[in-house]
Amino acid sequence: MYRHLWSNAPKECLEYGDYSFYQHFQRSIPSFLPREMIRDYIVGRACASDVQKYVCFNSVVRHVEFVADQKHFTLRFHNLVTGKNKSENFDYVIVAVGHFSVPNVPSFDGIDSFPGRILHSHDFRDARQFTNQNILVVGGALSAEDIALQTYKFGAKSITISYRTKPFGYGWPPEIEELPLLTHIDGRTVHFKDGSKRTIDSIILCTGYKHHFPFLTEDLQLHTENCLYPDQLFKGIFLQRQPRLAYLGMQKFYYSLPFFDAQAWYLRDVILGRISLPEEEDRASDIRLWRERGKQLSGPSEVDLLAAAAMFKLGRVHKQENILEFRDKLFTSPFTGTPSVANPICWIDAKDDRIL
Amino acid sequence: MYRHLWSNAPKECLEYGDYSFYQHFQRSIPSFLPREMIRDYIVGRACASDVQKYVCFNSVVRHVEFVADQKHFTLRFHNLVTGKNKSENFDYVIVAVGHFSVPNVPSFDGIDSFPGRILHSHDFRDARQFTNQNILVVGGALSAEDIALQTYKFGAKSITISYRTKPFGYGWPPEIEELPLLTHIDGRTVHFKDGSKRTIDSIILCTGYKHHFPFLTEDLQLHTENCLYPDQLFKGIFLQRQPRLAYLGMQKFYYSLPFFDAQAWYLRDVILGRISLPEEEDRASDIRLWRERGKQLSGPSEVDLLAAAAMFKLGRVHKQENILEFRDKLFTSPFTGTPSVANPICWIDAKDDRIL
Repeated sequence: MYRHLWSNAPKECLEYGDYSFYQHFQRSIPSFLPREMIRDYIVGRACASDVQKYVCFNSVVRHVEFVADQKHFTLRFHNLVTGKNKSENFDYVIVAVGHFSVPNVPSFDGIDSFPGRILHSHDFRDARQFTNQNILVVGGALSAEDIALQTYKFGAKSITISYRTKPFGYGWPPEIEELPLLTHIDGRTVHFKDGSKRTIDSIILCTGYKHHFPFLTEDLQLHTENCLYPDQLFKGIFLQRQPRLAYLGMQKFYYSLPFFDAQAWYLRDVILGRISLPEEEDRASDIRLWRERGKQLSGPSEVDLLAAAAMFKLGRVHKQENILEFRDKLFTSPFTGTPSVANPICWIDAKDDRIL
Repeated sequence: MYRHLWSNAPKECLEYGDYSFYQHFQRSIPSFLPREMIRDYIVGRACASDVQKYVCFNSVVRHVEFVADQKHFTLRFHNLVTGKNKSENFDYVIVAVGHFSVPNVPSFDGIDSFPGRILHSHDFRDARQFTNQNILVVGGALSAEDIALQTYKFGAKSITISYRTKPFGYGWPPEIEELPLLTHIDGRTVHFKDGSKRTIDSIILCTGYKHHFPFLTEDLQLHTENCLYPDQLFKGIFLQRQPRLAYLGMQKFYYSLPFFDAQAWYLRDVILGRISLPEEEDRASDIRLWRERGKQLSGPSEVDLLAAAAMFKLGRVHKQENILEFRDKLFTSPFTGTPSVANPICWIDAKDDRIL
């Protein structure tokens, strides 16, 4: 998470069904929001329900195992404030730690002796650290797109995006260019597959993350890449070989907040006995069915969630039209019908973390 | 560990008693060595004894507990290559993970909105990333001293060292200055206790490390700061409440390699039954005695290990005489009598990782 980050999808795609943006801010606001406003909205909903009093904060879960003969999980955790360790038993365990914290770091010939700064997008904090520099951004997904834009916005001299599969193809400003994958690095000179080379000050690896659950015994760990339907998770939630262990939010994100809610509500109803889980073989068939459907998708534009999906797709069109202005577009809430209002200042000129 | 790092004490202070520098390099070499040569020497000794065949590499220890009724330790570890977890039982456990990997990170008013780069010395990799910058180095120990020198050597515009207790007081070049502790940060402006302020591009926190053993049950964890004689360790090695758990190298270092050897040999002899550990109360008295002695030391110069200590002290005098030239001085091995030879190039002009 970096300073001056704005959402890259309209807020109307990530609105909570039971807590609208209008309810929180009590006014119409723009569609694309700085991170401080998104945080304010998320925290606002948590405060409205007073859920925090049920949460044990500042505790690191060190180990979770299922004790078969007693049919419960034993969880060992460490309290960071008291320094004490503690064990407790639970009937269900829900893993909701996210999957954007352990960087996937590729290697390239010569990277060990590159004299400049090398960082993963995970550690990108402030684009002003790259002002006047020649930047190499490695990656072809949302982080690469956004960090290229952000360093441009804050005055990088040049940004070279290196892609493995295909370029974004946006109408980039002249300071941003796209080249195929780098092949090797020689001092400050980076060489690319098409034979071109560039002199680079800093390399930012926007190369994704790993799903990583070292605190679970091996049999409880989910093994997946970043995809729409991870294998071995019934309804994308319940671990097939131990369905009392649930994973929330382990999918590739498009809708984030309302998607997490949909998962959480389903899981709650299973725990409360309102929904019964099918037998193992039926769950396996369901998983196969959805994974087959997933494979047939040609791209995210075919994932359809009605109004939000339409806006999501429209946002992609806007990017193609003008990558520097897509965040100035306005959308309307599918829940409340509230139209968003224009920013007093457009995204490219807004260079602090203020609330709009 | 950073590129182009050189030892900051003469090699004659850190020579292995059973494997001399002369034996390894088969020639006389300078007293102060680049990191590549130190590594070559350490690996050379390991290869000479073929000890690697007994080591299980690429495995992370996740959990160690003492099983009282069976009188052994159960150790759970994760093989990073196969991805498998495994448990094994052991009669003794030796913790030798070092104590320079978990940074101690202080906070200062305004540090959250400092726009430049902030890093701990742990993450310092290449001084060329700071060429032409105005650097703030926070700290008053060896890392601060060396990173100030290193960034000067590779062309930082200015280096301000901020100390808490007292300045080094070396004859620094005009680009390096020492100021008391910073009080707060306002944008890029750093304010200090004496009322002065500086405009800074990057902040390097040389603020030490934490002893951190999350893989041990609480009762087995050592709690100590960086000192000469940690409490609860008999002979600086055996945990008082469970002496079959040993800690190696948890002290503040002066002699590193030969010091580790002395500890390892003592520990080996205890495990082999050649040395018997005294009863708990006698061990406690011994710990108290040494910690009292430690308190009466006014500084490291009174820790006396004969020839090596004399050289160590002399190195400190050299720093006071000329901080830019202390690494060009020559010493003589106390083990082999081999005098070191002058570098063909002096430290300030040697800007790569080559073997001398």
